[in-house]
Amino acid sequence: MDILQQVTHGGDVKQLNNDQLVRLSDEIRKTIVDSVLVNGGHLSSNLGVVELVVALHYVFDFPKDQLIFDVGHQCYAHKILTGRLDGFARLRRSNGVAGFPKREESVYDVVNTGHASTSLSVACGLSRALDQRNVISVVGDGAMTGGLIYEALNDVAVNRQKQIIIINDNKLSISYNQGFVSYYLSQLSKNQNSESLQSIGIDFYGNVDGHDFNQLIPALQYAKQSQHSVLIHVNTVKGKGYAPSEADPVAYHGYSTTSPQKTFSSAFGDKIVELASKNPDIWAITAAMKEGVGLNEFARLYPDRFVDVGIAEGHAVTMASGLALGGKRPIFAVYSSFLQRAFDNLLHDVCLNDLAVTICEDRSGIVGGDGETHQGIYDVSFLACMPNIVIMQPKDYIELDDMMDFAMTLNHPTVIRYPKGDIKVDYDVHTKVELGKFEVLRYNPANSLTLIAGGATVVEQAYNAVKEAEKQGHNVNFINARFVKPLDTETLNMVKDTTVIILEDNVQRGSLGEAIGNYYAESGTNTKTVAVNLGDSLHSQADKAEILADYGLDCDGIVGLILNHDAR
Amino acid sequence: MDILQQVTHGGDVKQLNNDQLVRLSDEIRKTIVDSVLVNGGHLSSNLGVVELVVALHYVFDFPKDQLIFDVGHQCYAHKILTGRLDGFARLRRSNGVAGFPKREESVYDVVNTGHASTSLSVACGLSRALDQRNVISVVGDGAMTGGLIYEALNDVAVNRQKQIIIINDNKLSISYNQGFVSYYLSQLSKNQNSESLQSIGIDFYGNVDGHDFNQLIPALQYAKQSQHSVLIHVNTVKGKGYAPSEADPVAYHGYSTTSPQKTFSSAFGDKIVELASKNPDIWAITAAMKEGVGLNEFARLYPDRFVDVGIAEGHAVTMASGLALGGKRPIFAVYSSFLQRAFDNLLHDVCLNDLAVTICEDRSGIVGGDGETHQGIYDVSFLACMPNIVIMQPKDYIELDDMMDFAMTLNHPTVIRYPKGDIKVDYDVHTKVELGKFEVLRYNPANSLTLIAGGATVVEQAYNAVKEAEKQGHNVNFINARFVKPLDTETLNMVKDTTVIILEDNVQRGSLGEAIGNYYAESGTNTKTVAVNLGDSLHSQADKAEILADYGLDCDGIVGLILNHDAR
Repeated sequence: MDILQQVTHGGDVKQLNNDQLVRLSDEIRKTIVDSVLVNGGHLSSNLGVVELVVALHYVFDFPKDQLIFDVGHQCYAHKILTGRLDGFARLRRSNGVAGFPKREESVYDVVNTGHASTSLSVACGLSRALDQRNVISVVGDGAMTGGLIYEALNDVAVNRQKQIIIINDNKLSISYNQGFVSYYLSQLSKNQNSESLQSIGIDFYGNVDGHDFNQLIPALQYAKQSQHSVLIHVNTVKGKGYAPSEADPVAYHGYSTTSPQKTFSSAFGDKIVELASKNPDIWAITAAMKEGVGLNEFARLYPDRFVDVGIAEGHAVTMASGLALGGKRPIFAVYSSFLQRAFDNLLHDVCLNDLAVTICEDRSGIVGGDGETHQGIYDVSFLACMPNIVIMQPKDYIELDDMMDFAMTLNHPTVIRYPKGDIKVDYDVHTKVELGKFEVLRYNPANSLTLIAGGATVVEQAYNAVKEAEKQGHNVNFINARFVKPLDTETLNMVKDTTVIILEDNVQRGSLGEAIGNYYAESGTNTKTVAVNLGDSLHSQADKAEILADYGLDCDGIVGLILNHDAR
Repeated sequence: MDILQQVTHGGDVKQLNNDQLVRLSDEIRKTIVDSVLVNGGHLSSNLGVVELVVALHYVFDFPKDQLIFDVGHQCYAHKILTGRLDGFARLRRSNGVAGFPKREESVYDVVNTGHASTSLSVACGLSRALDQRNVISVVGDGAMTGGLIYEALNDVAVNRQKQIIIINDNKLSISYNQGFVSYYLSQLSKNQNSESLQSIGIDFYGNVDGHDFNQLIPALQYAKQSQHSVLIHVNTVKGKGYAPSEADPVAYHGYSTTSPQKTFSSAFGDKIVELASKNPDIWAITAAMKEGVGLNEFARLYPDRFVDVGIAEGHAVTMASGLALGGKRPIFAVYSSFLQRAFDNLLHDVCLNDLAVTICEDRSGIVGGDGETHQGIYDVSFLACMPNIVIMQPKDYIELDDMMDFAMTLNHPTVIRYPKGDIKVDYDVHTKVELGKFEVLRYNPANSLTLIAGGATVVEQAYNAVKEAEKQGHNVNFINARFVKPLDTETLNMVKDTTVIILEDNVQRGSLGEAIGNYYAESGTNTKTVAVNLGDSLHSQADKAEILADYGLDCDGIVGLILNHDAR
């Protein structure tokens, strides 16, 4: 690491010769692999852009010039080159370096991101604000499938502010290679003299080998000198320089240090295959997350009923509304934080039409290392306001199965939210799922305290806490809040004379706890409630267990709550 | 109307000859003008597509074939031709015909819509579900600026299900004429033999005169016979056949029967001009709604700080985040229901980055005749869950001014929500706007009842009700809920010993009332609350006054509430 140690700020790269740049790239690659194998993270994409990032720092003057990584998951080399080599050993950990760009860490990070296709829109605003500076967007081919990029390209074409757009093409997005505008780009790539893009104010500079400084540097220098927008098409190899990752870049896209045997994603994947085998109307939809959400087997067995729309959650949901209008039973499996990108599609296209679209919402609640942009902690709030919707949250895999069966009997929009990863507890009780009914796990009219817990992660912690409190002589009512909507007022009435603690992995405003507190206030029952949730603040990247503990949602915290609030 | 009387279902058109089709079109046009001048509605766009709609019914077999109007505001001729001539006289009124497609009205309406750019996504799902049937999307040039259309075009290109896409080009969208993909379409239009689109599975059929049956019918017949997707480029004249509308199609885009002198939109327009004259960092952004939101004068005076992004609310918000990152003070003026389309842009790009972007949110609350898709009744819920956000709602124009001044002093995401149209009341009290503080309009420690009203429309009704109740000897506390977030717990504590009625024009889940009820339940104050809002159901098109009355949010309803709940 002799060269890397000398590069403490981006500008230091400018002093190196070509040979040193190559050696620096090797050192960066080794640093990335070492840290990701320990901490988890995005491996393939970061290995693919090492030379591109080094070349960007060689040519441009950051932070005066502005560098925006689309999504942001490919920012590791950039972080290593901008004074964060030390923190990189604790990548994605609390007190370490975040896995995505973070303004709080460095002036070299322009904007905090984690979702796709936003870079060029941010750049359109930055260019207007910072006249005369270069603003560079690095966009993967996958992000090109998101509609926001096209809205931004339209802005560039109409308004002619200078943009430098780098398409990092690693040929991994199937949609991109066959798609609409991508086709247009590939046509241009065949003919560099094409005037087509130029006539809307964008120069095209194509076919750049993204691992060759002798091609990268001239391309970037051309863009830097240009008076108007330049789109550079760079070809990179995902996973470059690390054999396992080059061989299977998809498997190493997001690398986890621990992979439990069974997860909610795999349980979902098993169940949807079972449902599809019995019901030919079931379709599965993903937005470029086939592996992540557990749809590999479905896609293999039922390719004619499987649709991957690319990173286009809005289209996924509105397209699902069309399937439902045609009598099918579409199931869209999506991460909670990415469902945010289809908010109006769900409200306007699905819920206002009261269509039988099922959303299987993975990564709800706390996700851990990916940080703020990936937390699934807003969904209860933004979903519960929608008309006609039914929202469920299973406590375990068996209940997920039951809820998927139940969803197939409903003719309404339905969301089933479940967390990332697995749970450890084996519940002995599994009651029938009924519309709008909580599951009462422990109840005694003599108890003075009731715990209502929502979401598998929180129910698990609460279940362990309830057992621990029992050992200490505190018997409490314990309820699994299966339904976020409709609200189970009957069960709420049953426990109205106790203190009611509502535990959930969602922010406060619009939470289930708030709906419950309000229900009691309106009922005039004088019920005292305690809402324990994720409040209104953001939690930086950290282990899930750390975050749970910080908010008092871990077993110890809940035991403490019980001891504090149990009257006897 | 001798021909129109004979056409009671779409198929009846098939029996007519060219001359009769022309006369039918004239009759339809007259019917549309007559009704819109009485009821208000979308005039120019509907007049522009009369022949296109007649030709569609002539060629295709609805409802077996499926016809989807993008946005849906151009569906009048279609409604008139499908058994709804009688109800059309009460267009946009309760018990009349809706101004947008509505499945509840007719099997000829495929999907309820009101927002732009969704048609082709719905069509992608429908085509998959209804193999072998023709699915036709009619898309205006404006809707082509929305990213969702490109996500859908990508799906069509990749998956090759047959689509019939009709671009209704009336040349009114500036962005379209200069934009990215639109440029590509215009290139194709110049060369009908181009193989470019064909190579991604789409035939191009261009330059069709949208008012000439001799061109329209062959084009549609070609599309009907085709085995694969066809994109037909139809040129139409917006406002065709009605002189005032042809002369000024923008003014007649949405025609209102009553236009008050001063509205919240005009008050906003005046204020932002004043702010911009003093602060060169202020930028104004609109998503194709310059007139609607009141930005005409700003655009005229400060063209260099005015951006119209087209119907691309997502880009508008994320682009604003870039302006804010660059030190500017962007203000995005947008209708509440269209802000739904930028949910994640606001959450991910603005709020997670805690940027000083101001959203001036017009048409919040009940909008009346435009119906379900345009109601601004979800915004309190979907905004309040976002971190770092400040949400205000002024009671009148003076307070809107004050809040815009105040917003310019905040370094956080800020939303100011205000209703469509005007208010009639003159308030005598205007206190200083302070962060997170309600405005106490009437308070006496001896009162046993408190009204907390949020949003100008509801505050106005409540103000009149409070005065009326006073005449009847009922004195109550009356609070203007200026801040949705942060919550004014100090004032809530002040009135905790009274019954608290919370009145607002938002759905129940995630409402301000729910937050207040929950606050009291958590505080253990045993405060009884009554939340009066728009519940969880949808209200069909009707006058604003009718809807307010139906939910008990009009003056009479609130007087009744006071009499019921005031203890003395």
